Amino acid sequence: MVIDGFNQKELESLIEELSTYGGSDGRGITRLLFDDNWIGAQNWLKDMFVQKGLDAYYDDVGNLYGRLEGYDTESVIMTGSHVDTVVSGGKLDGQYGIIAGMMAIEYLKNQYGTPKKTLEVVSMAEEEGSRFPFTFWGSKNIVGTVREEEMTEIFDENGIGFKEALYKTGFGFNKKVDDKEIEAFIELHVEQGGVLEIEKNSIGVVHHIVGQKRYIVTVDGEANHAGTTPMGYRRDSLHGAARMICEIMNKAIEYGDPLVATTGKLDLVPNTSNVVPGKAVFTLDIRHIDKHIMNEYIEKVMSLMKEISEEMNLGLDVEKYMNGDPVPMDENLVEVIRNQCEEKGMNYRMMHSGAGHDAQIMALKVPTALIFVPSHKGISHNPEEYTDLRDLVEGVKILIETLYNLAY
Amino acid sequence: MVIDGFNQKELESLIEELSTYGGSDGRGITRLLFDDNWIGAQNWLKDMFVQKGLDAYYDDVGNLYGRLEGYDTESVIMTGSHVDTVVSGGKLDGQYGIIAGMMAIEYLKNQYGTPKKTLEVVSMAEEEGSRFPFTFWGSKNIVGTVREEEMTEIFDENGIGFKEALYKTGFGFNKKVDDKEIEAFIELHVEQGGVLEIEKNSIGVVHHIVGQKRYIVTVDGEANHAGTTPMGYRRDSLHGAARMICEIMNKAIEYGDPLVATTGKLDLVPNTSNVVPGKAVFTLDIRHIDKHIMNEYIEKVMSLMKEISEEMNLGLDVEKYMNGDPVPMDENLVEVIRNQCEEKGMNYRMMHSGAGHDAQIMALKVPTALIFVPSHKGISHNPEEYTDLRDLVEGVKILIETLYNLAY
Repeated sequence: MVIDGFNQKELESLIEELSTYGGSDGRGITRLLFDDNWIGAQNWLKDMFVQKGLDAYYDDVGNLYGRLEGYDTESVIMTGSHVDTVVSGGKLDGQYGIIAGMMAIEYLKNQYGTPKKTLEVVSMAEEEGSRFPFTFWGSKNIVGTVREEEMTEIFDENGIGFKEALYKTGFGFNKKVDDKEIEAFIELHVEQGGVLEIEKNSIGVVHHIVGQKRYIVTVDGEANHAGTTPMGYRRDSLHGAARMICEIMNKAIEYGDPLVATTGKLDLVPNTSNVVPGKAVFTLDIRHIDKHIMNEYIEKVMSLMKEISEEMNLGLDVEKYMNGDPVPMDENLVEVIRNQCEEKGMNYRMMHSGAGHDAQIMALKVPTALIFVPSHKGISHNPEEYTDLRDLVEGVKILIETLYNLAY
Repeated sequence: MVIDGFNQKELESLIEELSTYGGSDGRGITRLLFDDNWIGAQNWLKDMFVQKGLDAYYDDVGNLYGRLEGYDTESVIMTGSHVDTVVSGGKLDGQYGIIAGMMAIEYLKNQYGTPKKTLEVVSMAEEEGSRFPFTFWGSKNIVGTVREEEMTEIFDENGIGFKEALYKTGFGFNKKVDDKEIEAFIELHVEQGGVLEIEKNSIGVVHHIVGQKRYIVTVDGEANHAGTTPMGYRRDSLHGAARMICEIMNKAIEYGDPLVATTGKLDLVPNTSNVVPGKAVFTLDIRHIDKHIMNEYIEKVMSLMKEISEEMNLGLDVEKYMNGDPVPMDENLVEVIRNQCEEKGMNYRMMHSGAGHDAQIMALKVPTALIFVPSHKGISHNPEEYTDLRDLVEGVKILIETLYNLAY
């Protein structure tokens, strides 16, 4: 199959048009679950789905679907991504995958008519956790892992409860998990990292989404006068923390790809230039696609931290607050996509995802794959998020090829 | 001479009584330049000076003196310290030296009558810089280094200008520098550090007040996604800063006493757990009693920091914002005090001061010495500041011995 006649100008203009919902103030797009921009965007998408000849419908919780019924209706090949954004987000994170999915299905319908298997594009209600302290409302409801109890004590920054906002938009909790058989879910998304651009690839075929563990590390020393406390009498929490961070980074560099370790946040008490810091609190974010290697690294690092704290007579407290296992993508689907890339001579690479995506939730119940296009300079969650139109088109093309292969 | 009949109960009760000016809320003493507590304290001290048989008078700027005229009136032997406090300060920092000076002169008058040289105790108006962003108002005016121009754009946190507060209390700028010849200034102060207590000494004879250099170091990297940015693509400002801080501390420990180096404040941008820190800004406070050794250390550390920043492709900006030279105490006076300690078998040690004191300003024009008594656990600038009464009395005793030696 040769994809020609694909309307890349329309791809560009549809992204721009959808971006007006939440993006009218010139400071990026802010479209939070159930807010007016979110309602506007979903309703605009619903109209677009209908215009493109798809059956458009919402589920109980606010996910929107565009359906092209196949003649064998047993199961569904689904694509799509999330419609919500972070505060002041870009024009691609999430919504690119929805527009791309819609256009891919439209293209296939126009070129090849009714598919064998039903094709659906989904505009998932929420992934980012930007309004409420809860992530993946959309995909978690599709796979049925949301419990109503956990949504009760959740409020947005204006004190509006999750349930209040949910009911006000006319949605509710899942009456029952959708009984449709999803045979495959393919998410197309921007990389949100710089690897594809640096390596000069247009497509990333994701084989794993990393597991993430996050810790808060507290190093307790003693606050002392910077002038009157000789070096030998100090219990300097920052000196201890600095030594630990060096070990964490050295060891991570030694392990190498795909392990990443980040200390993104560090706070001192009292944080005053002329006082030896009494307390240092820092975060540790560790990601890898292999649980066992990740755990081995963590064990080594924790043991080095303990040694340093004991040697320096510092208190050490390590609290884990996130513990997510790596999620492999479906091997067969990955193979289908990789073969398409090879056959069509696309400029692709195999890679892992270092960030979380709806695909990792869907993969719990459904054979799932994830495809990336480059993010310029790796910038995302930012109004400057940008991908060259040629790469956006390459993304839609590999999606078309994959959906054709699976559904026709 | 054997000091007997010294009223240590009175020493204790006078400190308590003076502490009521600014210390009535149970959260330590807050007595800021020219505020009501400050006026109350100075007026109470003036009355006390008179009660003790001294001539009490203010200078133009708010320093209070208690004078015991000698029969040779050519020159003055002066003691004392500052009457102001930090916010929520202790009962000893500053005012102990005033009460002690007053009681020492009273003791000498009662025991030995009129001295040869005039003895004065001074209650200096201000040292801490707690109300206005200006330090040493008291001692700087005595030695004549305050310029009226530099006091114009200075405001307290309520927006009250320095001059407004100054004139409101009835004081003003120095009409001319006091023309009295100060032959010696002896300051008695709490150590505000833990050395004397740890080393089990009652008296510290200070030979130098350290020089201080303070820097703000900015390390510029690149903020990146913690998950999608491989270790090899990072320009992690915190990793760079951590390596620099380790070198700073290792080198300071290697140099050893009396060099101290402190990074008390460190701030990251954006300081978020899942973002590689784009910028790290930290302070560097370096103190030593020898300018040349301090400069040599600083050169080494700066060069190590530069190497690290170049190796890691990080930006590095170092801004100096304090540059104070070490101040030696007067050799003859130090020798007089040390001899008194030896002769009387006092439990003393020679030491440097790591903190700043009025003595370092006075020393610019006047032969000056500084005597310490221990601070329990090194705590100061805190309501829990404490010194055992026996050590406070030892302090007054060495002051009496010294003043006797100089003035009789």
